[in-house]
Parts: sequence; structure tokens; C-alpha cells
Amino acid sequence: MSTPPLDPHDKTIDFYFDFVSPFGYFASLLIDDLAERHGWHTRWHAMLIGVSVLKVMGMKPLLDTPLKGPYTVRDAERHARLHGISLGRRIDGPIVNPKPAGMAFHWLTQHDGGCSKAFARAVFDAYWVQGQDISDATVLGRALANANPDAPYGVNELTGLDAAQFLRSAVDASLQRGVFGSPFFIANGEPFFGVDKLSTLERWISCGGW
Amino acid sequence: MSTPPLDPHDKTIDFYFDFVSPFGYFASLLIDDLAERHGWHTRWHAMLIGVSVLKVMGMKPLLDTPLKGPYTVRDAERHARLHGISLGRRIDGPIVNPKPAGMAFHWLTQHDGGCSKAFARAVFDAYWVQGQDISDATVLGRALANANPDAPYGVNELTGLDAAQFLRSAVDASLQRGVFGSPFFIANGEPFFGVDKLSTLERWISCGGW
Repeated sequence: MSTPPLDPHDKTIDFYFDFVSPFGYFASLLIDDLAERHGWHTRWHAMLIGVSVLKVMGMKPLLDTPLKGPYTVRDAERHARLHGISLGRRIDGPIVNPKPAGMAFHWLTQHDGGCSKAFARAVFDAYWVQGQDISDATVLGRALANANPDAPYGVNELTGLDAAQFLRSAVDASLQRGVFGSPFFIANGEPFFGVDKLSTLERWISCGGW
Repeated sequence: MSTPPLDPHDKTIDFYFDFVSPFGYFASLLIDDLAERHGWHTRWHAMLIGVSVLKVMGMKPLLDTPLKGPYTVRDAERHARLHGISLGRRIDGPIVNPKPAGMAFHWLTQHDGGCSKAFARAVFDAYWVQGQDISDATVLGRALANANPDAPYGVNELTGLDAAQFLRSAVDASLQRGVFGSPFFIANGEPFFGVDKLSTLERWISCGGW
């Protein structure tokens, strides 16, 4: 029942999310402030929960699950109201393909890491606040312009063959680490699933585990 | 996105649990204190999540779910350590049939309501702290003696045909209310799933919703 003490030199929270997950979006608004309060930093990872992980788990999409689906919609709307978030799309509306945005995110992580987090924030905003189609190249181009106005590359490069490979590798690596939902956090080896776990995660890093 | 205001006259938290759910046990240790802090009271309901609800949802048991199963064990052990709970059985050990205890609980709720909560606490303690087999009549008899030493009835009555009917009706009623996991709380019509939601529930009842 005991775990080894945290390595005091590794103050990294890995934050895994799916762009089309409302709770992933909610977590993206909170996680960096949480980390900074304790002198930690974050590393963001775009994931494909609906597309890839649920197959591994043998589960259907959350919103299609009887009883739990309607509850989840209500829970997300409740969270949004509490935090003053105006959603530009329905939680239970049609889902957009998150692959192009995930590819672009991981291409940036490889080639221009300093702006990948800003890009992810812009994509989340485009999808959840503006209600835009983040599988569309124009929308991704605006997110890129937002993250790096002087980028010497374009959306075509961000969604090309090597970007697809980066995304596949990232999804495989996250599965290897046991990531199965959005948001998911790993702080110094310790996993936390769900936006409701942020207070436990914060307690964990401030206490050095228990 | 808005919900009707809470009825100030109904200060009841319905608490749904499965005796063999570790998180249901953890919630049983917290929910009455939480309610009392705000002048609310609780009504306890034994449920059958693994036996009944998962079939409705088309899901396999949580601990048998790849990725999520191992995480859940770790999460439960982490909760137990934080709260100083010494578990007398493994989270991922064999599961005992919770039906007899659920039947006895609902028989008591009907016939001797004043002691059903004490009985539930004794059953939880027998299972999770003492590591006992709560499908065994002797164990249930000790829980009954603990809850009501002067009971003019015995375990046979608590697990008879009408008790089975009470349990079936209770499971049906909870499904009608959308209960799909353990623990599950309904405060004045508002649903909350999971022990991690207790802080949100507490905020909800202290704010009168939002």
C-alpha cells in the first residue's frame, strides 16, 4: 500500500487530453496555474480517447452509455456554470474528428515546442468557445497564427505524414503509461484521472505524496 | 444550462452504495458528517452495481476493464492511505455476493428504519475492515446485533422472500433515478457520482445550487 517517495528533482505534471473532451478543455484552463502554485511545470499531450483508447478498453463512448451519458452532460454543464465558462457548442452535440488538431499539436511539439501549448489553447477555444470545426484547415491555421504569428511553416506541414506518425507514437506512448481518459495527469509517476481529481493531485504534489 | 433553485424544505441527500464497492465504503465514512455540517440529513440506499446496473449500461465490471481497472485499485489504495483507513481485504480480491446484505438492509429500512444505517455501517466494516464474508448469515447476524442488540427478529427474516422483493424494488427505483455507480448521491434532485464529487456536492448544498 505504500509508494516510493517523489523524486524532488522531477516536478513535471504530464497532462493528457482529447481536444473534443469537455473535461479536457476544463482541465486545460486550470492545470498550469495549479502547477505554478507549487513550482511545478506541465507537459501537454494531445490524445485520441474516442478514436483509440476506448477500443483498447472495449468500451463505447461515454455519451452513448446509458445512465452515465446523460449524467456526464449534466456534470459538464454544471462545471461550466460554476466556472463561468460559456460553451459555444452542446456537450452532447456531434463530435468533430480530433485527429488533424492532434497531428498539428504533435508536429509543433517536435518542431516548435515553445508554441505547442499556445496552439492547444487556441484549438480548445476554437472548438469549445467559438464552436468551430477543428478538423478544418482554416480553423487550424487561425490557431497556428494565434500561437506563432511568424511561423515559417503552414498548416499543410502540421497535418502531413510525419505529423500523423508523431500522433500515433504519442497515442501509443500514452497507452503504455496507462492513460485511458481525458483529462489524465501523471505527476512524477502518479496517475490521476478526471478534472475532479485536480484537488487530489494538488494535495499530492504539495505533500510530496502519501 | 440553468437548473431550478433548490427546494429549501427538502434537505435530503440520497446516498446510494454497493456494499462491495470500496468507494461506496469510503463515502459511507464521510457523507453523514458532510450533511450535518449544513443542516441536511441523509437517506441510505443499498444498490447492486456489479450485479444489476452494469448490465443495463452494457459495461463490464470496472476492475476487469483494461487500463481503468489497475488505475482504480491504485486510486482506492491512495484514498485509503490518505484517510488512514486500514483495509482488511484487497481491492482487487474476490468479490462477495452483496445480495443478502442488500436484502437485509432493505428489510430493516421497511421494518426497523431507525437501525438500518447502523446495520449498513456494521456490514461495511465487516467486509472492508474485518475482511469477512458478508454473504454469510453469521456475519450478517453480528452486524444486526451491532445495530440493534434487542431486535425481536433474526437474520432469516432479513433475508427472506419479502426482503428479496424490497431489494429488487430498490434497485429498480434507483435505476429510474439514473443511479449508475457507487457511491452516488442525489441532493434535492441533483445527481453526483463518485467519492471525488463530495466536495462539489458540499459546495452545491451550501450555495443552494448554481
